[in-house]
Amino acid sequence: MAIPHAISGEIVDILGADGNLPTAKSFALFKSAQLEVMRVVLPAGKAFPPHRVAGEITLQCLHGTLDVSVDGQSQLLRAGQLMRLEGGVLHGLVGVTDASALVTIVLCRV
Amino acid sequence: MAIPHAISGEIVDILGADGNLPTAKSFALFKSAQLEVMRVVLPAGKAFPPHRVAGEITLQCLHGTLDVSVDGQSQLLRAGQLMRLEGGVLHGLVGVTDASALVTIVLCRV
Repeated sequence: MAIPHAISGEIVDILGADGNLPTAKSFALFKSAQLEVMRVVLPAGKAFPPHRVAGEITLQCLHGTLDVSVDGQSQLLRAGQLMRLEGGVLHGLVGVTDASALVTIVLCRV
Repeated sequence: MAIPHAISGEIVDILGADGNLPTAKSFALFKSAQLEVMRVVLPAGKAFPPHRVAGEITLQCLHGTLDVSVDGQSQLLRAGQLMRLEGGVLHGLVGVTDASALVTIVLCRV
């Protein structure tokens, strides 16, 4: 699926109209020159395996509880909480409950 | 007030423990090499006057409804919605209701 164009000033719905998170799909909200923003949906027990990206990341838990492993160390991230990750850090996610997150990745380099 | 250090992997509460948005203050969540993230609180009728920042921005409405003006054109941004703004764009916020937003600013240049 193509990542949507990033139109400045356009409003994007993060949660989707149905609110049915366990069956809703992860999707890219947009990709621009400096940012990539996506909504990640993880039903309970499902994993997003450990990986690295070059730029800084914020992980914002929107619903439920996520287990976030950073360099092999786990923490629980709950709705209303946000975690910043340095670029290049090995990180993975597991849905502790049905959960979703807004993931923002910086694409540029300082 | 000093902006907190950005510690990779540290969990930050976006909403605050009290949940009392009209009286809660805006505050910087962190500033790092590539990102500045803040929670902006606007009681109904209060404004954040039009201004510009160099990097791209995402405005995510957390609670209530915001009137977002972009180059003088207004749109309503409601809880669960996000808007991307190009760097250098003139933008301002008004609380239509008591409202709060998570504001993410990219500090690096492509």
